[in-house]
Parts: sequence; C-alpha cells; structure tokens
Amino acid sequence: MPSTAAPTSPRFLEACRRRKTDATPIWLMRQAGRYLPEYRKIRETATLLEMCERPELAAEVTLQPLRRFDLDAAILFADILLVPRAMGLKLEFVKGEGPVLTPPIRSRRELARLREPDPHESLGFVLDAVRIVRRELAPGKALIGFAGAPFTVASYMVEGGPSDDYRTTKAMMHGDAPLWRALMMKLSRATIRYLRAQVEAGAQAVQLFDSWVGSLSPEDYERFVRPYSKLVIDEVSELGVPVISFGTGNSGFLDRFAAAGGDVVGADWRIPLDEAWSKIGRGRAIQGNLDPVLLTSGPTRAVLGAARRILERAGGRPGHIFNLGHGVLPTTPPERVKALVDFVHHESAR
Amino acid sequence: MPSTAAPTSPRFLEACRRRKTDATPIWLMRQAGRYLPEYRKIRETATLLEMCERPELAAEVTLQPLRRFDLDAAILFADILLVPRAMGLKLEFVKGEGPVLTPPIRSRRELARLREPDPHESLGFVLDAVRIVRRELAPGKALIGFAGAPFTVASYMVEGGPSDDYRTTKAMMHGDAPLWRALMMKLSRATIRYLRAQVEAGAQAVQLFDSWVGSLSPEDYERFVRPYSKLVIDEVSELGVPVISFGTGNSGFLDRFAAAGGDVVGADWRIPLDEAWSKIGRGRAIQGNLDPVLLTSGPTRAVLGAARRILERAGGRPGHIFNLGHGVLPTTPPERVKALVDFVHHESAR
Repeated sequence: MPSTAAPTSPRFLEACRRRKTDATPIWLMRQAGRYLPEYRKIRETATLLEMCERPELAAEVTLQPLRRFDLDAAILFADILLVPRAMGLKLEFVKGEGPVLTPPIRSRRELARLREPDPHESLGFVLDAVRIVRRELAPGKALIGFAGAPFTVASYMVEGGPSDDYRTTKAMMHGDAPLWRALMMKLSRATIRYLRAQVEAGAQAVQLFDSWVGSLSPEDYERFVRPYSKLVIDEVSELGVPVISFGTGNSGFLDRFAAAGGDVVGADWRIPLDEAWSKIGRGRAIQGNLDPVLLTSGPTRAVLGAARRILERAGGRPGHIFNLGHGVLPTTPPERVKALVDFVHHESAR
Repeated sequence: MPSTAAPTSPRFLEACRRRKTDATPIWLMRQAGRYLPEYRKIRETATLLEMCERPELAAEVTLQPLRRFDLDAAILFADILLVPRAMGLKLEFVKGEGPVLTPPIRSRRELARLREPDPHESLGFVLDAVRIVRRELAPGKALIGFAGAPFTVASYMVEGGPSDDYRTTKAMMHGDAPLWRALMMKLSRATIRYLRAQVEAGAQAVQLFDSWVGSLSPEDYERFVRPYSKLVIDEVSELGVPVISFGTGNSGFLDRFAAAGGDVVGADWRIPLDEAWSKIGRGRAIQGNLDPVLLTSGPTRAVLGAARRILERAGGRPGHIFNLGHGVLPTTPPERVKALVDFVHHESAR
C-alpha cells in the first residue's frame, strides 16, 4: 500500500534521535533472510547476487518480514561486498566457503586498479530497490540503508574472503601502513558516495556494519580503523539522517568504538545493555542486544524473559532500539520472531 | 637437567601471588605446538591422542619450547577433551572438523552413562607426564597443569564437537536446566579430581581454560556457568597452588567472570590491559594480553611495540604475567617468539 501521508515520524527514527516513543521500536539484523519460507522461495529462483541486482526482488525480500511482523523498520536487502565489486573485484559466493573476492588487494598495483565507482552507475540497482521500498512502505515504518564499515569490507578485500584471524590484513596494517591507509581511504570514499546515494534515493537512516571489528585490539582499532569509520560517519551525518554504528566482539573497547560517531551505537549480547550504554555515553542512542541463538531453540519463555531483562536494563529511557546482538540465524522459527516483536512493543508500552 | 635445588620460587609463581619479581614472567598459551619443527617431527610419528597417552612424548613436547626460549613456565601438553573421554565418550580428531565426541550428551540416559573417572586410573598417563616434566624442569621454571572449564568442555559434549553458535548447548540451558546442571555438576566433579591429581603429581599452578565462554551473554554466564567454574576454582585453590582462570571474548563481562575466582585472571587482546585489570580487581593478578596474530606476520618491531605498550599499561605493578590473548598460531615463526620472550624480560627489568 503506497504511503500517502506520514502523520508522525516513525517510532524508529524518533528513538534514533532519543525522543520519547509510545513503545520501544524493534527491528532485527538479517530480518530479511533464509529463516523465512517466502525468502527461500525467491532464493530458489535466483542467486544472491541476482537478488541484489534485480530491484523488484531486493525490494520484495526487504518488505517480506514487515508483512509478517510488526517491525518498526525495514533494512534494505543487499550485500556489503557490492562495494568492492563495484570497485572492480570479482565477487563469487562459493558453497561452504562464503564470499570470495578476486584478486585480493595486497599491493599498490592491485589497489591502483580499483575504481572509485559512481553508485548511480554501478550500484543503481540498489538505489532502485530503495525507491521501490520507500514507495511501498507503510507510514510509521522506516527504511534503513546500509554499508559495510571500512575495516570489515577491507578485511575481505585483503584476505580475499572470510578469515579466521585476519592475518594478512593485520600484517598489512603493521607492515605497510601507507598501503593499508590508502586502501581504507579509497574504500571510505566509495562507501560515503554509496551511502549518500542511498539517502538521496530515500533511505531514512543508515547502518554501518563493522561485524569483524572485534578481531582487533583496541590499539589497532584506534590507529588503523577508527579514523576511516569516523570519516564515513561524519560525512553521512551531514545528510541529516541518523547513522547507526554497529560492531560485534568489541565490548572491551566499546567506548573507543563509540568515539567514531553515530547517533546510535549497537551492542552485541556479550555485555549488559546498561553497561554498554554507559560506555557509549548516555547522550547517544543504543541498539541491541539479545543473543540471536536464543531465538533459534529452547523455550519461547526464555526468549521473552531475556527480552524483558534487556528492556529493564534500558530502564525506559528514550533512545533504546531493540535488536539482536547480531543477525537472525537461518534456523530461527518465524513464529518466535513474531512473539518477540509483539512482546517488546507490548511490554515497553506498559 | 634434573633440578637439585630451588634457590628461589620461580618468578612465575611469585607473580601469581602478586609478589615483586626481577622481571615480568612470560609464558604463551599453546607454546608447545605445531609452530615448532621439533614438535611437528614428533607429531609425524604419533597422533595427538598417542602423544597425550605416551608420557615420555607428552613430557618431551611440554619441555621443547623451554629449550628454545627463556619462558618462565611450562604448560603440560594434553587436551581438554581427555576428561570427557575418561568419562566414557569416544574422542576422535577428524581432519577439517576438529574433535568429535560421541555420543553427544543430550538426555538423561546419555548423562547417566557417563562415568566419574578416577584420574589415577583413566588419566594416569597425564600424571606420569607431570612427574617427568617436574623432574626435568630447571629450577626457576614452573609447571602449569590445566583443564578445560566446565562450560567449554560441556559445550563440546552437548554439541558433539566444535560449534559456531552453541545452539544445542544454549537450548539445553534454557529448555532443560536440570539436565544442564546435572551435566555441569558431574563434569565439575571430574575436573576437580583431575586437577587435584595433577597438583599431587607435581603441577605448581593450574589454568582453567574457558575458551568459548565469550559465546554467552553475561546473564547466561552468571546463571548457568559461573557456579560450576567457581566450584572448581574454589576446590582447587584449597590445594595451595595458584589458579589461573582464562576466557576469551568475555571483555564485556570480565568483572562477572573474575567473580568466579582464581588468583590470576586472563584477558584476551580485545581490551586494554589496565582496563581489564580494573575490572578483575587490583587485588588479583592478571595474565595477557598480546594479539596472537601479531606474532605470525608483519614486522617484529610491531610485535615488540605492542608488547611494550602492554607492559606500560601494567605499569610495573606486581602481578602481571605476560602472555598472548589466546594460543600461539601454527604459522608463528619461532624466532619471533624468542624475540618477544627476551624483550619482555629485558624491558620489564629496566
């Protein structure tokens, strides 16, 4: 149903600005995904990349979870590695291995070959998906755009795929810092242009995913990563939409991570929400932080009990956006997602 | 060379008790391992289990790193899954998959079949290795015994092997808490007996490895795990040897983790050492916390620079034991380990 008027700003956007809302907003990372049968049905007809490249499919899977559940925001269906692909790397998804990028960037020669893509040309399909979703999305619901944070994306570019220990990436930071910094700068510029184009196309907030930042020591994060995250966040903040900065495994340096900026900072499930909020600073909003594994199995009352205790730790203060500590797992039963979403709204509205 | 007299207590043991030492002691988790050619040579002639079961081989690889490097402690070569094996599970190491335990413990029937092993009978080979190492170890060097912490070992027993998300383990905690608690109790008792036997055979300190504790939320850790870790630590502490409690990924709840006890608490590399020490409490010793990946590649000066900054964060206070934040990786060049060990001693003695 096309949105004809937006009587009030979506609850999710209000919470990003730390304004009081009638209930705690909730959305879930990877809410558009394999745990939904309607997603799998589309996935059977198209590869992951085809789903990203066909705006009507990307928009459809983006909207699917909002048809089932009373989620407060949709998150664009896309992949964080579309950016290095647009820069000229070949991206393949290899069964059992995950994404493979070729050639890996390990020298100035390879770096020099990377394009600085115009997102309107090389990533126009993403922007088209944004436009479709915005047209379809009910008033009261917000659309979140996103990109990978420079470190997480660069680690894939340097390693050539997923890594257990980010050995080659860390060796480049310490062994050839100018090369590392040049790669991070080039990638940051591409990310800024990409996020700006998403916002111009209609994204109402953006999330920067730094999923693997928890592989770093606080010192390496500050020296080799934060300046670039901060650059991206600062530039995108200029556009007037809320920026969510998300990492995992970074509880030991969440204060340093939060110093990169962002209206909202994510917390994974390995830290009590109130302690995370203190580290982030009470002047910022927080997103999190239920263990995603709890949603997959065990009794529903355990999920709801844990959700209640997270709400208690948030203490009803404006600026809490309920989410998992990481993405929805493929084995999650959809009916448990429904129970969680309804519970969070109901419980926080009391 | 047999030790004939111990003129002074080993530096490592003094630091565990937070007494002043002439230099910061250092040992490295997994210092006896695949990165050493002399280890690989023995490994070619025997499986991992055979190496554990033949005391002369286990003692030999335990001592190998101390012949090359001026390490302050040896750590017994063994595997944390020897305990569930002694309890009656079948343990195999499957290439590419890691350890496999059968049958996985998922019901009362399987739990009831588990033996409570007498370590002198079913794990006598470990105790023999302890005796050999103690006989061979130079004065001034200490021998650390160890076991897996109840959660980490139980997770292998429930999952049947390594896991990405500990889904079955968490489902048992929340779905059948009495079964989970009964398993943890049985395992804790076996672990206590095993560690006690190691101490009686000559181990001068023991470390409890809770490597996967960082998969848990602070809440689940406190409810379902800490009581058992605390029980083991309390019982072993009665024997008068220092207990080191080690986990990874737990920076967000290191205070709660430290509340389980231990003379020394380990910190992984994802938190600044001084902040970790504050969370552990200044009345306890701390072990850590260099990123193990830094040792594998990149310039040696980067390793030594990071080590210097860790020593600076320790601030020369008694009770810091230098270590990595997790185990030595197989690709680590031995000469870099030597450079690190010598640097830590030299730098801290100034």
